[in-house]
Amino acid sequence: MKFKGRDIISIKDFTRQEIDYILKIAGEMEPVAKSGSDILHGKLLATLFFEPSTRTRLSFESAMHKLGGSAIGFAEAEITSVKKGENLADTVRVVENYADVIALRHPLEGAARLAAEFAKVPIINAGSGAEEHPTQALLDLYTVWKELGRIDGVNIALVGDLRYGRTVHSLAYALSLYDVKLHLVSPDSLRMRREVLDTIKERIKVVEKRTIEEILPRLDVLYMTRIQKERFPDAAEYAKVKGSYKVDLRLLEDAKKDLIILHPLPRIDEIAAEVDATSHARYFQQVWNGIVTRIALLALILGATE
Amino acid sequence: MKFKGRDIISIKDFTRQEIDYILKIAGEMEPVAKSGSDILHGKLLATLFFEPSTRTRLSFESAMHKLGGSAIGFAEAEITSVKKGENLADTVRVVENYADVIALRHPLEGAARLAAEFAKVPIINAGSGAEEHPTQALLDLYTVWKELGRIDGVNIALVGDLRYGRTVHSLAYALSLYDVKLHLVSPDSLRMRREVLDTIKERIKVVEKRTIEEILPRLDVLYMTRIQKERFPDAAEYAKVKGSYKVDLRLLEDAKKDLIILHPLPRIDEIAAEVDATSHARYFQQVWNGIVTRIALLALILGATE
Amino acid sequence: MKFKGRDIISIKDFTRQEIDYILKIAGEMEPVAKSGSDILHGKLLATLFFEPSTRTRLSFESAMHKLGGSAIGFAEAEITSVKKGENLADTVRVVENYADVIALRHPLEGAARLAAEFAKVPIINAGSGAEEHPTQALLDLYTVWKELGRIDGVNIALVGDLRYGRTVHSLAYALSLYDVKLHLVSPDSLRMRREVLDTIKERIKVVEKRTIEEILPRLDVLYMTRIQKERFPDAAEYAKVKGSYKVDLRLLEDAKKDLIILHPLPRIDEIAAEVDATSHARYFQQVWNGIVTRIALLALILGATE
Repeated sequence: MKFKGRDIISIKDFTRQEIDYILKIAGEMEPVAKSGSDILHGKLLATLFFEPSTRTRLSFESAMHKLGGSAIGFAEAEITSVKKGENLADTVRVVENYADVIALRHPLEGAARLAAEFAKVPIINAGSGAEEHPTQALLDLYTVWKELGRIDGVNIALVGDLRYGRTVHSLAYALSLYDVKLHLVSPDSLRMRREVLDTIKERIKVVEKRTIEEILPRLDVLYMTRIQKERFPDAAEYAKVKGSYKVDLRLLEDAKKDLIILHPLPRIDEIAAEVDATSHARYFQQVWNGIVTRIALLALILGATE
Repeated sequence: MKFKGRDIISIKDFTRQEIDYILKIAGEMEPVAKSGSDILHGKLLATLFFEPSTRTRLSFESAMHKLGGSAIGFAEAEITSVKKGENLADTVRVVENYADVIALRHPLEGAARLAAEFAKVPIINAGSGAEEHPTQALLDLYTVWKELGRIDGVNIALVGDLRYGRTVHSLAYALSLYDVKLHLVSPDSLRMRREVLDTIKERIKVVEKRTIEEILPRLDVLYMTRIQKERFPDAAEYAKVKGSYKVDLRLLEDAKKDLIILHPLPRIDEIAAEVDATSHARYFQQVWNGIVTRIALLALILGATE
Repeated sequence: MKFKGRDIISIKDFTRQEIDYILKIAGEMEPVAKSGSDILHGKLLATLFFEPSTRTRLSFESAMHKLGGSAIGFAEAEITSVKKGENLADTVRVVENYADVIALRHPLEGAARLAAEFAKVPIINAGSGAEEHPTQALLDLYTVWKELGRIDGVNIALVGDLRYGRTVHSLAYALSLYDVKLHLVSPDSLRMRREVLDTIKERIKVVEKRTIEEILPRLDVLYMTRIQKERFPDAAEYAKVKGSYKVDLRLLEDAKKDLIILHPLPRIDEIAAEVDATSHARYFQQVWNGIVTRIALLALILGATE
């Protein structure tokens, strides 16, 4: 399998075989995440974040440092040439001179794809509009695989904002490559986008619901998401659905003993703090797995491992 | 003495013996500050600054680089997940996955303590509200010790905003562990906080004054502070006291020949530029000593020295 | 020739012999730009950008990383002590304790010179007001030299905002040390500053024009610039001249086969996208040459090469 020089734009660009391979390499990279290495000594990552995301940016930078490389970049569009009117294609053709790989977050759908068309160095999509967040999907899969020992056969629910949440779009696509039973739980106004639904229904069993309660007892994985205020075109619309779902100890009484709860974070109040201490909570381990997965991706696309 | 894995939250958590030990290690770290090292090669510092402070942030990052490590982080809350509503406990439990140690600056008192309760990695308080700034106190002590050869027996005055200035709170506590004579000079509205005063008066001799002139001739150390506009709840209150104290050549005519003047910086007009060239001025050396002291702290809590 | 410890403030501080030497070293540093090195292992660059400039800041940081060093700094004045009222002289005397070299961008003319007077470490002017941008001029010269094999004898036009554009001021001075024919193309309101014109006219042949068309056929180098909105005191004045010049395929029909087009970037619409694919376009190679030139400068002033 050839990853060197490859862009990571959409989870849809990967076969199941390729994803399995990435997960395997991630597993092998756990020691690097723990103790560091000099695998990418002398290599540079540029993090171009046109939208703020401390979490994802720091995760990429930490991964690069643990590989022995370094990182440069910016954390918000306000302080960039974009303010001076530069287009993304130019920005990318400039920055490719500075770094060996670019992690790009952008508010517009299609931005990462466009960047990859212009760039000579690999582009990693670190979130583009409400569309895709492929490295999040990979780390989510890695978490399921590491925690449950398998992905095939699991009963998984994606809960919350399935319409604007890019994380769940990428994850739903990725899961559809496996033999899972997928439950989609959302208010009517935040149902999974039609085009995602159509694609994944061709491959796996998908059930849409309005409440967690009616499916909880059968679940192996409960994937919660934040209802993201900043993605709503309309504040009134947001007010109607915020706080729709909340996982607490009482709800979890009906859960399987080994149910795991995931969340891409940050959370607001979708998961009560009292849940953190239970054996179900895996959302902070997920953060660790994000480092591990991004270490694997950087090592693969920069040709440091095969 | 065991420092590995320890949080640096409040100067009150340290005994005199421990502080003396930190100063000794700082002295030994001067060559590292000058020429760099690979002592912490592969280690990562996260600087989480929810309040801007270029000076302190760059000092920590410089210290980490001189130890051979690297740094990631953010410089203001605006561009973080906090904007999305995340609480500090979650932020810390995320970031501890990215880095080996966290330096935290936060506008709220108690923030560093809370962070330390949740974090598995050591937390260094880089300033919390108007409360504490322990690494500044340590570098101040180191400066006195390095410049005068002793801390015991010195006559020292803290001047300016003793109410809102976190630096002087930490420093007053630290000094009270030594046999010093402490003069507190401030306008009435900016007198040292009651709880600090009560504690230190049990241990050392403390005198409160309204002017520098009346005590200057006896002083070994004149510690000036900026009256910090941003800490005042009321602009009118600020206008009344700003510019209360100003050290210039004329004032210094009455000073001891070997008086040293310190300032945590930035200064506005508390110290006239003409003073910079005198042998009294030590505030820029203080900055250097900050690097040295932070190198010592990072090396100690990451277990690279004992 | 002695570069160690030297400030890079104005192109006017350099002789032709010195510039030639810098270009030679830049040529030798191409492998470092490509593959990295450990030449400046343990050294720190501070990038103090009081004005946003992603491009220049990332270029310096990339250069430092490729030399094996590290970088710290800030990207906008908003998040610095300046907000607290600190003056530049103090900022510099603080930061010189943190780093081995400082790259400074500042909105005020004279800022870099002032900084250099106070700093013990070398200062590199990364742009000061509308005045100078010496490292841009050096990378521009390097690009001409590398692409055309010579600087003497070339026919070069500087086009656009010659009044407020600091890049063209530095470049015009630099070119006047060589035997070039210089064409200055601008609207009347944006003519080259008098003091620059007077100086360079003493040394080389300078012709001022209002259109590109009348001189294009003879040109070896067409240097386009953006008309910088942010430098105009008056919005109406800006509206009158923006879009004055635009290079497209039709215009280029009259160009020499081996004309090269340069631009300091970012561009808005001075160069049509259709030009990017022609053999004339060299503005993205210019970015690469910027890394190479800054690697050479950092290595020289930190004494890593001679």
